[in-house]
Amino acid sequence: MNSFGRIFKISIFGESHGTLVGVCIDGCRHGIELCENDFSDAIQRRKSGKQGTSLRIEPDIPEIASGVFNGFTTGAPITILFKNQNAQSEDYLQHKTIPRPSHADFVAMKKFDGFNDYRGSGHFSGRLTLPLVAAGLVAKKNIPDIIINAKIIEAGGETDINAMIEKTVNDGDSAGGIIECIAKNIPVGLGEPFFDSIESQIAHLAFSIPAVKGIEFGAGFLSAKMRGSEHNDIITNENGKTATNNSGGVAGGITNGNDLTFRIAVKPTSSIAKNQKTFDFKNKKISDLKIHGRHDSCIALRIPVIVEAITAIALADFILLKK
Amino acid sequence: MNSFGRIFKISIFGESHGTLVGVCIDGCRHGIELCENDFSDAIQRRKSGKQGTSLRIEPDIPEIASGVFNGFTTGAPITILFKNQNAQSEDYLQHKTIPRPSHADFVAMKKFDGFNDYRGSGHFSGRLTLPLVAAGLVAKKNIPDIIINAKIIEAGGETDINAMIEKTVNDGDSAGGIIECIAKNIPVGLGEPFFDSIESQIAHLAFSIPAVKGIEFGAGFLSAKMRGSEHNDIITNENGKTATNNSGGVAGGITNGNDLTFRIAVKPTSSIAKNQKTFDFKNKKISDLKIHGRHDSCIALRIPVIVEAITAIALADFILLKK
Amino acid sequence: MNSFGRIFKISIFGESHGTLVGVCIDGCRHGIELCENDFSDAIQRRKSGKQGTSLRIEPDIPEIASGVFNGFTTGAPITILFKNQNAQSEDYLQHKTIPRPSHADFVAMKKFDGFNDYRGSGHFSGRLTLPLVAAGLVAKKNIPDIIINAKIIEAGGETDINAMIEKTVNDGDSAGGIIECIAKNIPVGLGEPFFDSIESQIAHLAFSIPAVKGIEFGAGFLSAKMRGSEHNDIITNENGKTATNNSGGVAGGITNGNDLTFRIAVKPTSSIAKNQKTFDFKNKKISDLKIHGRHDSCIALRIPVIVEAITAIALADFILLKK
Amino acid sequence: MNSFGRIFKISIFGESHGTLVGVCIDGCRHGIELCENDFSDAIQRRKSGKQGTSLRIEPDIPEIASGVFNGFTTGAPITILFKNQNAQSEDYLQHKTIPRPSHADFVAMKKFDGFNDYRGSGHFSGRLTLPLVAAGLVAKKNIPDIIINAKIIEAGGETDINAMIEKTVNDGDSAGGIIECIAKNIPVGLGEPFFDSIESQIAHLAFSIPAVKGIEFGAGFLSAKMRGSEHNDIITNENGKTATNNSGGVAGGITNGNDLTFRIAVKPTSSIAKNQKTFDFKNKKISDLKIHGRHDSCIALRIPVIVEAITAIALADFILLKK
Repeated sequence: MNSFGRIFKISIFGESHGTLVGVCIDGCRHGIELCENDFSDAIQRRKSGKQGTSLRIEPDIPEIASGVFNGFTTGAPITILFKNQNAQSEDYLQHKTIPRPSHADFVAMKKFDGFNDYRGSGHFSGRLTLPLVAAGLVAKKNIPDIIINAKIIEAGGETDINAMIEKTVNDGDSAGGIIECIAKNIPVGLGEPFFDSIESQIAHLAFSIPAVKGIEFGAGFLSAKMRGSEHNDIITNENGKTATNNSGGVAGGITNGNDLTFRIAVKPTSSIAKNQKTFDFKNKKISDLKIHGRHDSCIALRIPVIVEAITAIALADFILLKK
Repeated sequence: MNSFGRIFKISIFGESHGTLVGVCIDGCRHGIELCENDFSDAIQRRKSGKQGTSLRIEPDIPEIASGVFNGFTTGAPITILFKNQNAQSEDYLQHKTIPRPSHADFVAMKKFDGFNDYRGSGHFSGRLTLPLVAAGLVAKKNIPDIIINAKIIEAGGETDINAMIEKTVNDGDSAGGIIECIAKNIPVGLGEPFFDSIESQIAHLAFSIPAVKGIEFGAGFLSAKMRGSEHNDIITNENGKTATNNSGGVAGGITNGNDLTFRIAVKPTSSIAKNQKTFDFKNKKISDLKIHGRHDSCIALRIPVIVEAITAIALADFILLKK
Repeated sequence: MNSFGRIFKISIFGESHGTLVGVCIDGCRHGIELCENDFSDAIQRRKSGKQGTSLRIEPDIPEIASGVFNGFTTGAPITILFKNQNAQSEDYLQHKTIPRPSHADFVAMKKFDGFNDYRGSGHFSGRLTLPLVAAGLVAKKNIPDIIINAKIIEAGGETDINAMIEKTVNDGDSAGGIIECIAKNIPVGLGEPFFDSIESQIAHLAFSIPAVKGIEFGAGFLSAKMRGSEHNDIITNENGKTATNNSGGVAGGITNGNDLTFRIAVKPTSSIAKNQKTFDFKNKKISDLKIHGRHDSCIALRIPVIVEAITAIALADFILLKK
Repeated sequence: MNSFGRIFKISIFGESHGTLVGVCIDGCRHGIELCENDFSDAIQRRKSGKQGTSLRIEPDIPEIASGVFNGFTTGAPITILFKNQNAQSEDYLQHKTIPRPSHADFVAMKKFDGFNDYRGSGHFSGRLTLPLVAAGLVAKKNIPDIIINAKIIEAGGETDINAMIEKTVNDGDSAGGIIECIAKNIPVGLGEPFFDSIESQIAHLAFSIPAVKGIEFGAGFLSAKMRGSEHNDIITNENGKTATNNSGGVAGGITNGNDLTFRIAVKPTSSIAKNQKTFDFKNKKISDLKIHGRHDSCIALRIPVIVEAITAIALADFILLKK
């Protein structure tokens, strides 16, 4: 349940305030150069500490605990561990009985009969996206020809994102955002019709990222308003290059050699500074909720590198499967 | 690659103009009443023949070829076959060298080095959604308490859909649409954090339906424009009932007991009557394309029952997994 | 549960006295020549009708219902169906309440709460090895360089098998046997350490064949009595050729380029003509049992071609995975 | 490839002389008491240091790094790590070019193009059975009613094992052995016909244990010499209790409620003190080999607890699947 992939397989584990978070990667090619420093940029991009992001700052130092020998991948499973250090667990005790609205508190408690680690949302935490980012870096090394870029294109409905964030923080509130991802140099023929379409696999992984509530490929939801004569991408050469890219680089579930493009919708962080109402399970009534702890006002700001990671993971799996 | 599910597993097979299309369902509960008549309503809803849909009318008679004995499921794999009868294969020969824009013709040819069955799009055909609908009916019987309804809420950007369709057909064009699906009586606790979230599994299946280009849960893409104080769904009682349902019934990837709601974007059918341009692989130049064959002007009209089917398949798998 | 494989995946379905038995094969290479006649020899080898085998003689005509177009595999799932014709279902009614010793009757009834198709053992029947043999033929076509041969080397403890069979039939009894399988031209490097070792996958499939109770590779159980200095296979050249082959072509779970060799133990058919005792669930006491129906006296005689099939299936999966 | 299981899923990682070895367990029930001390007995049973076992003595201290909170399993993945400490890597350098007979040296080098960690056999090492044993302990806690016992019943062909071991060590040689495993209190109905038979799953896991070359259930290879009238286990009561247990507790691939019994054959350790011949890949000729390092003379002595572990893992998976 915490694993994904057919050839390039990843398994994530750990809790926000436990000993560590980590990932085990099975199926990576052998003979790829890999060291701890390789992860620095990606980890830095995911880090909090900037405006609109959480004050919990973790060193996030990766430890490659298996699968690499003399600086190269061996073909055995690669394990990457990140120790947790900067946890303030006392902030979370109240949520055992007073679950935050639109947060995993309630469902985690019910699903696991109260045995879940509630500190910092435990295994439900966005902290688990750190090993995802690490796995994405390893995935990218398996598909060096493909260039993947994701960026935030809108937050809280605005494109002037800095001003919007400042106002949101001042209001003790949070904001959602939209991430756009474009992958270039994609070979024709990745994916399968039906269940293992490119879109199916990427969407599957995208919804693994906490706070993601929507995904669309190419023209996406706008397609629904279009006519075929507008939407159809005219093929212009033997390589399948098209004049437009409303299909987002995918036809019949298979890559067509054009840029793979998609956008994801990120909801506003559910933990906000403002007072809210929720059900108090101890006193069995609706009551006021004041959330402590350190949270992101706009989690979407930290998500582009995670979207790149899951895209690389999906594509590495398809490309290794194709070979 | 043509299979899906962990406990309730389905495998689809067949081609549009081959002998048959079908599905094998493994993991269905034993002791469920099942006969060919049970499929009638669902098959009827998927059928073409109404305005805006294809003129190819197949009898679509299901044959339960295994897994049912004396009118009840046995616990062994259930195979359901549909013979093909009304094929006009000669319509498709030109697409071997003149691929339709935004269609699977080009990628299928490349991926399978020309060995793919090109007649009626072969295994890429929407005809494979017929066994999906059959599997959905069997899935529903495994989760009798859950009520799933999907409907088209918009086509070609209009809500007066009949008028829009008529105009589109007259123009020799096609139109996209949006389907909304709501599932009621969902237990709390289905799904897993990360890779096996409810959203991941449903999105995975939704993108298996040809022509789907987007999916959003609850407030979806609108969430990205909202603030946390607006978006958060206040919990109002011990069962987790919320005052609003911007989360679409899912928190942290897990069902929270509220209605599961999502919308999918369907692109306009790529096969249109109007003249188009595309690359001619035989003559190695861009040329005119006139599509023959019988196609849907608004495939979205036939998709609600398929969306219900994939929702039932996903939920049956989660519920059987939970038991 | 009725599927096997990672790249070359097979799913079997059907019942002994139902409409049909069949297999769906996903992941076969495209562009392989395949027609119904290709299956004749393998099907003939599995057939009953010879001394020591059942009197139920089925035509066993394969129908390729999907995945092949113009005589070549397309890359889409290949479905092969076999209609059942020669069933005498009335023979089996008594076993609903009087289960045969060492047969699936009792466990099937318990596991499926009496909903199982008991006719001819339903989905538990050895008749399901017919689609296995068909899948094996397709697998062999994916690995044309590898030569697989299995034969019965002992039955009822004797190597003069004909005489032993005659005596067993005359006694109204049944006999077990040992099958040896040798696969040549195996590349070095198939398999993984631990869970996906060559031995793990082949053993997994071998125990899918009804009546198999043991498997050993190379020197097998005899290894347990040997010393390292006797057992070790000295490497004699750069290709890994060894002087002896006590390892059966596998080291560390991986093929070492020498012949893959293994033996399987087949128990005597549990359905015998002789009177037996068993528990009568209707009268709730131990009672006499006289088995009707048509059964094999030495099912091992029909198993070599099935062993070749499962070996081909396992190897095709490993080889396609390696590419 | 390094994972196993459908509901109770384990993934193992690490190398013999790397930082650590470990296991990630997904699908364990929540609410089970679990602490590091629980592993002591099982780890002690697997330890080397007794006569006939290796001189490499590791502390083998488990660290539960995720999935347990306040002493109970949470339902999130359980990660258990074992740091390596007592490695003498210099012993192994020669095997890069002079592979040991019947050992993984040659295949590992070929499969991974020389990138494999050759120290102490790297990821191929028997040291990986330590996390397997840990996973087995967790599995056992999921199925508390089932009692599993494995023991060595023969080594080097002898039942007076101590004397045989002493002689073998003195001769600088190694010996194989046979392990018998019996599991009691097994419910009726675990397993599926064909690919997911109890025998298939247990055999799959058994061959994951390095040095295992055979497995047989119930009467096993002896069955092949028996007649049906001898072999058949007469059912004697309503619970399916049988007078004999030649079937080893399995009929039609399904547990029948009698003791599950099987035996596995373990080959002699391939690393022996005695001089041997092998191919020298540097000098491209057959040459003498003198193995350094610390090795078990009779690895079978350490395997019973591993066999219990894999049995518990297989049964936990079946039982969680059945619920």
